[in-house]
Amino acid sequence: MTQATQYMHSQEPLLFKRGGALPAYTMAYETWGELNADRSNAVLILTGLSPSAHAASSPTDPTPGWWEPMIGPGAPIDTRRFFVISLNSLGSCKGSTGPASINPATRKPWRLDFPELSIEDIATASHEVVEHLGIEQLCTLVGPSMGGMSTLAYLQQNPQGARHYLNISGAAKSEPFSIAVRSLQRELIVSDSNWKDGQYDDENWPEKGMRMARKLGMLSYRSAEEWRGRFGRRLQNYFPPEVFGMNYEVESYLEAAARRFIHSFDPCSYLYLSRSMDWYDAADGHPNLAAALQGVQLQSAYIMGVDTDILFPPHQQQAIANALSEIGVKTGYSQLPSIMGHDAFLVDHDHFGPNVSAYFKRICAEDALGG
Amino acid sequence: MTQATQYMHSQEPLLFKRGGALPAYTMAYETWGELNADRSNAVLILTGLSPSAHAASSPTDPTPGWWEPMIGPGAPIDTRRFFVISLNSLGSCKGSTGPASINPATRKPWRLDFPELSIEDIATASHEVVEHLGIEQLCTLVGPSMGGMSTLAYLQQNPQGARHYLNISGAAKSEPFSIAVRSLQRELIVSDSNWKDGQYDDENWPEKGMRMARKLGMLSYRSAEEWRGRFGRRLQNYFPPEVFGMNYEVESYLEAAARRFIHSFDPCSYLYLSRSMDWYDAADGHPNLAAALQGVQLQSAYIMGVDTDILFPPHQQQAIANALSEIGVKTGYSQLPSIMGHDAFLVDHDHFGPNVSAYFKRICAEDALGG
Repeated sequence: MTQATQYMHSQEPLLFKRGGALPAYTMAYETWGELNADRSNAVLILTGLSPSAHAASSPTDPTPGWWEPMIGPGAPIDTRRFFVISLNSLGSCKGSTGPASINPATRKPWRLDFPELSIEDIATASHEVVEHLGIEQLCTLVGPSMGGMSTLAYLQQNPQGARHYLNISGAAKSEPFSIAVRSLQRELIVSDSNWKDGQYDDENWPEKGMRMARKLGMLSYRSAEEWRGRFGRRLQNYFPPEVFGMNYEVESYLEAAARRFIHSFDPCSYLYLSRSMDWYDAADGHPNLAAALQGVQLQSAYIMGVDTDILFPPHQQQAIANALSEIGVKTGYSQLPSIMGHDAFLVDHDHFGPNVSAYFKRICAEDALGG
Repeated sequence: MTQATQYMHSQEPLLFKRGGALPAYTMAYETWGELNADRSNAVLILTGLSPSAHAASSPTDPTPGWWEPMIGPGAPIDTRRFFVISLNSLGSCKGSTGPASINPATRKPWRLDFPELSIEDIATASHEVVEHLGIEQLCTLVGPSMGGMSTLAYLQQNPQGARHYLNISGAAKSEPFSIAVRSLQRELIVSDSNWKDGQYDDENWPEKGMRMARKLGMLSYRSAEEWRGRFGRRLQNYFPPEVFGMNYEVESYLEAAARRFIHSFDPCSYLYLSRSMDWYDAADGHPNLAAALQGVQLQSAYIMGVDTDILFPPHQQQAIANALSEIGVKTGYSQLPSIMGHDAFLVDHDHFGPNVSAYFKRICAEDALGG
């Protein structure tokens, strides 16, 4: 959270899908560009599991954001034309209310007393921010990864909530492989001797569990093909030798990435957000996904996936595109030939930039948004 | 180890590739069928990481073996024609000498004092058993998974050691994705508070580490496609609810499989064998794999892989087939369209049985082995 972070403090209770409620809550967000006079140029980005609201730099906070090449003046999401909003998810720990926030009733962190979080709750809280900003309808709703789930939930809750929709490496439900990965990540954290049913503290942090959960995450976020070219069988010499320690560069890469993560994210937030993804199935209570999305009033949609993504494999994006087409939305679909796996949208700008840019140019033309 | 297990006790020291030695050692094996008069019908199977020598049932041990449908009278590896030998790997814990065996110098288990095990040492010890049985040349050498590595090492050490060669879901070297998976599995075990630098005992077993390492293994052995059809999003009700416990059937399946494994394998053996795979590169010290295999005198080879294998992906079997072709070996290659991933050779007999059967029929014809 920096000078660029803005906050919505709601004193209205937020009722959770699975029961329970927050008596009051805060949502952290950042914005870029200017909302136009008729409030028709807003782009809302709902993030993946771990990012903060800081998607891009700005004069107020010049540090690079997690989607730096995508957002800015002249960038694919061009802030000379669009008013861009990026939220920190409900349940996260980067300014929005989550299990690490203070429970007003106890004046201690919520931890396991936080209500059971669903993707639908993330969508509900996100919409409150849009209302708070006085925006009746988004120009474009954007969701990569977990954001591909929470944006679908947003559209189900607000069928006229956006005119255009960009879903990147998302899914309309969790499949067993991704559930298995996340379940093992959670098991790693709760098996750490410092977990103590959520009563860890800064001095007794579930470091091992967080470290290994992050490594497992990396295994599912990247691709074998990328690592083959990037690391091959090169030996590592960064970390000292240990009995059954690291031998190869791929191991030291994962170790370094995991160490950066351990203290950057709250373990409880991680568990709550991770589980919310497992639970998500947009078609719950409907015969199929098209029926579940019936009534959604989009002018256009663009669904993107990556052929090496093993966590949210391309057939899941194809399913979203098919369902939107079926309900009459003009829908484009691209399966990008990137070797960067699920994380491609974060790191493979060469493949994503031009496609996202072209989609936003079409949106500008269709909505007659000037330069 | 049962009545069917046979043992070779060697009083000769076994020198290890990376240094160190065993002053004496034991190899456990089983056999099926009869060695013919000219000792020309022997088939040697080197296993994957965890199996015992009990590949198939026999009158002496009627319990099903780990490759039951593949070996027997009339089976693809037909014991009416072939004398089949299956070994427990050096370094394992199912009768052959490994880190769980007693170190004669200390009268305690070797554990971390066991010399650093390489795939090449497994091959060396395996060849000693073949010599012990009075077999000069194998009819066929067979290696699935890790056995696909140790059989390549066997051929490098014994260029005229076999006339025919069947490599299933194997690899000539470890690539970074599989190294990352195994590295994390080892980290899980050594991070268990009961690990204690290898000084665990039956009452203080690194259960959590072994359980989670096995689950991670399952994630890499099977395929997302199989689980999609098999489990979908069905909920589990086998294990009782817990905070951040299991919700879905895929989770209870993994838990049950992992619990079966925990006490069936020695943690130290697991670490040693796992690391030996990371270290393996058949081309080490050679310009490429074909150069490394130059001199191998096979009459034929058949290399099989599975298109959903993410641990030993098909391009690795293709590389073995290409190298053998390049050195003039008549080589067949099949990439099977199985949804069962790396484990397909164990569980998808419909895809493997007919292909293995056809290969062994050709061997019979070529070598004029009667019925």
